[in-house]
Amino acid sequence: MPRYAIGLDYGTNSCRSLIVDLDTGEELGSVVFPYPSGTLGIVTDPADPHVARQNPRDYLAGLEATITGALQQLRAARPDFSPSEVLGIGVDTTGSTPIPVNDQGIPLSMLPEWEGNLDAMVWLWKDHTAHDEAARITSLASRLRPHYLAKCGGIYSSEWWWSKIWRCLNTAPEVFLAAHSWVEHCDWIPAVLTGQTHPETMARSVCAAGHKALYAEDWGGLPDADFLAALDPALSALRGRLYHKAVTADTPVGGLCAEWADRLGLCEGTTVAAGAFDAHMGAVGAGVKPGTLVKILGTSTCDITVASNDQPLADIPGVCGVVDGSVLAGCYGIEAGQSAVGDIFLWFVHQLVPDKYGATPEEKFIAMEKELARLKPGETGLLALDWNNGNRTILVDVRLTGLLLGQTLHTEAHEIYRALIEATAFGALTIIRRMEEHGVIIDEVINTGGLSVKNATLMQIYADILGRPLKVAASDQTCALGAAIFGAVASGAATIEEIQRKVCRVRERIYEPIPENAAVYGELYGLYRTLHDAFGTADWSGKLAHIMKSLLDLRHRQRA
Amino acid sequence: MPRYAIGLDYGTNSCRSLIVDLDTGEELGSVVFPYPSGTLGIVTDPADPHVARQNPRDYLAGLEATITGALQQLRAARPDFSPSEVLGIGVDTTGSTPIPVNDQGIPLSMLPEWEGNLDAMVWLWKDHTAHDEAARITSLASRLRPHYLAKCGGIYSSEWWWSKIWRCLNTAPEVFLAAHSWVEHCDWIPAVLTGQTHPETMARSVCAAGHKALYAEDWGGLPDADFLAALDPALSALRGRLYHKAVTADTPVGGLCAEWADRLGLCEGTTVAAGAFDAHMGAVGAGVKPGTLVKILGTSTCDITVASNDQPLADIPGVCGVVDGSVLAGCYGIEAGQSAVGDIFLWFVHQLVPDKYGATPEEKFIAMEKELARLKPGETGLLALDWNNGNRTILVDVRLTGLLLGQTLHTEAHEIYRALIEATAFGALTIIRRMEEHGVIIDEVINTGGLSVKNATLMQIYADILGRPLKVAASDQTCALGAAIFGAVASGAATIEEIQRKVCRVRERIYEPIPENAAVYGELYGLYRTLHDAFGTADWSGKLAHIMKSLLDLRHRQRA
Repeated sequence: MPRYAIGLDYGTNSCRSLIVDLDTGEELGSVVFPYPSGTLGIVTDPADPHVARQNPRDYLAGLEATITGALQQLRAARPDFSPSEVLGIGVDTTGSTPIPVNDQGIPLSMLPEWEGNLDAMVWLWKDHTAHDEAARITSLASRLRPHYLAKCGGIYSSEWWWSKIWRCLNTAPEVFLAAHSWVEHCDWIPAVLTGQTHPETMARSVCAAGHKALYAEDWGGLPDADFLAALDPALSALRGRLYHKAVTADTPVGGLCAEWADRLGLCEGTTVAAGAFDAHMGAVGAGVKPGTLVKILGTSTCDITVASNDQPLADIPGVCGVVDGSVLAGCYGIEAGQSAVGDIFLWFVHQLVPDKYGATPEEKFIAMEKELARLKPGETGLLALDWNNGNRTILVDVRLTGLLLGQTLHTEAHEIYRALIEATAFGALTIIRRMEEHGVIIDEVINTGGLSVKNATLMQIYADILGRPLKVAASDQTCALGAAIFGAVASGAATIEEIQRKVCRVRERIYEPIPENAAVYGELYGLYRTLHDAFGTADWSGKLAHIMKSLLDLRHRQRA
Repeated sequence: MPRYAIGLDYGTNSCRSLIVDLDTGEELGSVVFPYPSGTLGIVTDPADPHVARQNPRDYLAGLEATITGALQQLRAARPDFSPSEVLGIGVDTTGSTPIPVNDQGIPLSMLPEWEGNLDAMVWLWKDHTAHDEAARITSLASRLRPHYLAKCGGIYSSEWWWSKIWRCLNTAPEVFLAAHSWVEHCDWIPAVLTGQTHPETMARSVCAAGHKALYAEDWGGLPDADFLAALDPALSALRGRLYHKAVTADTPVGGLCAEWADRLGLCEGTTVAAGAFDAHMGAVGAGVKPGTLVKILGTSTCDITVASNDQPLADIPGVCGVVDGSVLAGCYGIEAGQSAVGDIFLWFVHQLVPDKYGATPEEKFIAMEKELARLKPGETGLLALDWNNGNRTILVDVRLTGLLLGQTLHTEAHEIYRALIEATAFGALTIIRRMEEHGVIIDEVINTGGLSVKNATLMQIYADILGRPLKVAASDQTCALGAAIFGAVASGAATIEEIQRKVCRVRERIYEPIPENAAVYGELYGLYRTLHDAFGTADWSGKLAHIMKSLLDLRHRQRA
């Protein structure tokens, strides 16, 4: 009898389903659902570019559309399919993406009285309104609870749980007061599927709770009430309406409830696994294990690896997310990332690439890729910092911005695109170096996410800059695949390792670094790192007059 | 009887004529002739972006077309016109724009054997191939003849006479050997008009000779033979085939020769004045006098003022061009400038502005200007350096490049355009401050050149950043008007001051600084100056981590 699992992956602009055959690894059904609200699914505020909210109704519409659609595809491929062959459902989402809910676990923005209120909606991961709150949490924790900060790289982020909830309290107190509790998007979907949405008893993901809600078993779960009271007594009071224990993603949350079994065409009682964040499940779907770094290259990136929890792992400064069990039970999950990668390219193509490259963003990307692939490293004379959306790792600072230098009166758009690609790769190298400097072993890099499969030129530049072979996961949907793996594991069918061995593969083409390019990029990285430290760290002091001249010298050498 | 003078202005991409009524100031004829060769009149080399050459045949074709065309217009307006009413002709050109010539003064590239050879053509001012030679001249002069350097701001430029001629010797020795001599474009045209093209007897402009050929009466004219021999013995040998004495632009070179009188429809013997560089004549056409700074805002800028030579003027570091008589006899001409201003905007609109702003560069500029005019200072969060073509004053360094920082995922093209305008204004302020710090009095600023009449938004930003009222010269053709003034003065008809009083006017609209904008720009200039010194000077050392955060704070304040 065939065995299937369903993975459901909620991204930034759309959600998608995946049905996988657990024995053959075949992916037999998959549907994408773009969120209908806002712009590309994100509700923004023209007065404040930091605002990024979502509509929870989009999530429910996507849940039904993507699973029923994928099941239709499965039935077409396997006419004998029976719903009982679906062992489990797993869910991943973006995060930290908290939702204010009432005492029934219903998002406030789905109640008529809060309809249309931006602050009552979902606070998407990339909402950066809470930078003041984040700075105050960092400051207070460094004084009162330094061990909290040590686990998240020394700096608490505006993208995370407490920053956003506190921001809501400070700027929209009426919403905060109306919210009985707050839930992560990744916890709310399994709760809806199992019909168990009461906030106090809802299963909560340790992956989401981990450093983002400052949860750790070491200190008894969430931050203690005294610390929260030092932020604001209202947050301390909220603590009691949240949770005490968070679970790993291989934990069954319950069985599919009758209502959703009916809506989806699945069996009531089908196992639903605890949720987790997309990157963590993507890493599992790509084949993460100790020694393997998985890079998820999308609008932003996540770099995930794991290390056995047999022995304690020293804190890694600026690496915000070392959480026991956040990826695999029995391992520390180590999470880093870049706040914008694909988003920088999208910004560039939409705002600054003239139509001589093509009529659409897609045409422009293709034409620019063709042009820039002809250039040697250093030939543009340009150097950029990849900070248009701040720097998550290793500076943990949203209040940084982009930088481009080296432009002349002849600089063309595709040259800048190349410099932006290189800048994101230099950012990626900075993360890997920081991990290795602190004892994390990385002997394999597997890439996944849109850019890794769509942009071979980018992948070669990355290999040249990272100086190591880059593999690409075979599945186009590693997040959803990871979610499906957890759905299967939660049902008790097999261990993660057993299922990974059957369903996780890499593509034939491996990007090997080209030695002469790697040597030039070694020089350029030195210049990048100088700019990075000069603009990004308060303790740097030094000289910069050599930067433009070194770039001109290198350009001259490479063009000769 | 009416009295007219003709000014002929050779710009970077085209030349133009102007006929002015010397008593009423009326401009009665003017024709523009775009140079037909190359791209926009500039012959480039795809292998080296520093190459910028011109075809001397374009100059002769333009000479005939623009003067005969302007005379037709004059005849239409004044049917009684007689050629004898034209008192004189003046000429200005770009510079340093040297031309290799044979012993008859014929440009090599007009000889069949050199046709099409880039190095035998005219070396346009913006040719930057000679940066190595410039650096070696600076280095040798600072050791052997420091007084040479003191007059040109401490650094000899790749845009100047000796750098280019030496470059030709080093990279195209066959051209150097074939050249009997070299002449400036501004000396060659009066020589052609008067039929006196023999290089050794040709009148040479002190404006061109001044700091650009290291000429000064103090040290006996051109650099001494020993110094030139230290560069290369071939340059020392060339010295004897150049000139010993240079003249001011009010000097009559001779009378119009029969051939050109016939071609132009003017009287043989009409006075032809010595040539000078465009900016210097433009300053005179705009009304320069002691205390008045004239800013010529075009593809690049020139900032010119004069100070009486009654008492000696101390050297001004980084201000490359303090030459007795270069603008007005009896005054030191003080010349500064920015290597690219309009050129930066043109680069930006051609390479980086998408078609949503319009179908043509003109439409894009208009749409962007409309958008950026709505923004307050600091609202973009951006800061740029205006160095896409190097920095002429006060750093005197062509090996500098552009810089832009502060960009987010929301930055739009018109915001960057505003930041580029602001950067050029900060560059302009840096020049004015340097002059004032060294005792030059500036109590009036008159602007001229395309940008000053076409871009009111730019002019207001400049007034806010420079913190003083900005006037705009009434004539659209101040360079050609200045040339005409010198044509008239050389004929002996009147003094410069007398003619300036009749023909130099400013427009009614004066741009007054808006105090609240000026205050914000004061803050932004502090940040600009930090970047300027950090990337542009070897002795700077300090910190930069505040830059991006200060820009974000300012943006936040200005948007509130």
